[in-house]
Amino acid sequence: MLQTRDVLTTMHAELERVDARVALAATVQLPAVSGLVQEIVRAGGKRLRPLLLLLAGRAYRYDLDRLVTAAAGVELLHTASLIHDDSIDRAGLRRGKPTLNSVLSSGAVILVGDYLFAQSAMLAAATESTRVVAIFASTLGDICDGQLREMFDAHRLDQTRDEYDRRIFGKTASLFAGAAEMGAVIAQAPEPDIAALRRFGSDLGMAFQIVDDVLDVRERTQVLGKPAGQDLRQGTVTLPTMLYAAGLTPRSAAAARLQAVIAGEIEDEDTIAAVLADIRGSGAVEIAMRAADLLVSSAKGHIAAIPDPETRSLLHELADLALDRSS
Amino acid sequence: MLQTRDVLTTMHAELERVDARVALAATVQLPAVSGLVQEIVRAGGKRLRPLLLLLAGRAYRYDLDRLVTAAAGVELLHTASLIHDDSIDRAGLRRGKPTLNSVLSSGAVILVGDYLFAQSAMLAAATESTRVVAIFASTLGDICDGQLREMFDAHRLDQTRDEYDRRIFGKTASLFAGAAEMGAVIAQAPEPDIAALRRFGSDLGMAFQIVDDVLDVRERTQVLGKPAGQDLRQGTVTLPTMLYAAGLTPRSAAAARLQAVIAGEIEDEDTIAAVLADIRGSGAVEIAMRAADLLVSSAKGHIAAIPDPETRSLLHELADLALDRSS
Repeated sequence: MLQTRDVLTTMHAELERVDARVALAATVQLPAVSGLVQEIVRAGGKRLRPLLLLLAGRAYRYDLDRLVTAAAGVELLHTASLIHDDSIDRAGLRRGKPTLNSVLSSGAVILVGDYLFAQSAMLAAATESTRVVAIFASTLGDICDGQLREMFDAHRLDQTRDEYDRRIFGKTASLFAGAAEMGAVIAQAPEPDIAALRRFGSDLGMAFQIVDDVLDVRERTQVLGKPAGQDLRQGTVTLPTMLYAAGLTPRSAAAARLQAVIAGEIEDEDTIAAVLADIRGSGAVEIAMRAADLLVSSAKGHIAAIPDPETRSLLHELADLALDRSS
Repeated sequence: MLQTRDVLTTMHAELERVDARVALAATVQLPAVSGLVQEIVRAGGKRLRPLLLLLAGRAYRYDLDRLVTAAAGVELLHTASLIHDDSIDRAGLRRGKPTLNSVLSSGAVILVGDYLFAQSAMLAAATESTRVVAIFASTLGDICDGQLREMFDAHRLDQTRDEYDRRIFGKTASLFAGAAEMGAVIAQAPEPDIAALRRFGSDLGMAFQIVDDVLDVRERTQVLGKPAGQDLRQGTVTLPTMLYAAGLTPRSAAAARLQAVIAGEIEDEDTIAAVLADIRGSGAVEIAMRAADLLVSSAKGHIAAIPDPETRSLLHELADLALDRSS
């Protein structure tokens, strides 16, 4: 049996190749911008999306160079999307570092994001598979759709779980689903396996976003690398908040306070901290984590028939990594 | 011989099909955004880029549906790029109508632009040609590069013609070049013809941008459909301004005034109007128009060997349309 965290060791060499491709593609020939972009790209994250893409192709006849190219494209698409997202949220910190929009004008940030989108599309095109490009483009469409929904659904407490699921699918799970599908397509997996790996990616992505939403409620700024409680501050209703709201007595003081914070009528930090503490104490965090657990189990179930047992085991590890992100 | 403007009549049915594809692809399933996006798309322009793409394929074995798909992709890429550009410039008017960013928050505008980029990439992928997708993606990269250069070169009067050319190639000519290349590639034109049509598009695009820069100096807001003198106001040094500056006595009052306007130190409308009047009176507008004329002649020269004489004649007309844009 492989040990937990072995997935990062096993795939170390491939991930290094992805990083090199990303760094090369993110080269901007403008001195004023170049250093900043390289820094953001280097800060990276856990590289879960490229890892998923590489692993999805691992059990089949893969051409490593094409997998690496697509994986770099996925990571760069993710980075471009984060840059625009930070600009939209006017966020000051990401991955523990100042965001691009705390250093450049908003116009420059939009253009740098667009430039990285272009580079990521070039990597997708370099796989020479129109199917990969089509998945890539529709994934970008899904991401924008999810982000637009997040924006237009903000400040409304009366949201259904369906609305939340649709939003986080677009915003986050679509790229996990697309990454897994691209890897399987490039490696010429049989169609049922492509579909199974896509579902694995989708469930994993949903779990990942729920955990992200839980962390925003549960952790401190130092742990997150970005300010805690941002969702509440922006009026974004996440699963922990929905579960907490469902347990409140209608027309109670706590319900009115939550309503006012989400609506953006109350913005003072003490009230936000009090609401966060209340959510943490309500059991909502535990229920949300259980939902994420179930999604990870479901994800693992989808790939029960994937041929190579070692690859299956690495994908299971990856799924566990998505759940346990505090360490 | 065909008469001028016949190109729009001849290609009317094809352009209608492009418009229908664009409208379909630009459908956003969010009520708050949908109407606005359709309005921008419908306002359209002269559809020069899709027209160029269609004509570039016309002399060869073309599949009209694939040409229409790519042409819709090019028009949508252009629209997405305008939306981000207006947001960066905080422009209030475009094509005589309020811009998206005068109605939506800047965050929503970024996302709507991204969404349209995604839709345009899906159209490129739908041509099922990885070469078309690669041209598409590298064109988007060139556009961003040009726009970033415009931003970082702003407020500096000491610019060379090379810097200007590089900037307007990226910002404008790259999409004309890419559109012509995509049309020729889809229609399986011989490689020398693909290269010739790309050069035709590039020169035409350069001429188009020079005329655009002249119009900003020469015309009134009502004619332009956007505020006149915007380049000066934003510190963007265009060819008419460069030519005007070259004719000024160093350290004269006029030179100092121009320097202060470009640097953004003087922003009052009377001074800007006076500088505009001076540029118009200096002969710079006429020299710039002659440069555009020469580029159009050069463009026409590139396609002398294109097989079908009627297509050649239509491409010549298109080139003339790019020059004469006041009517």
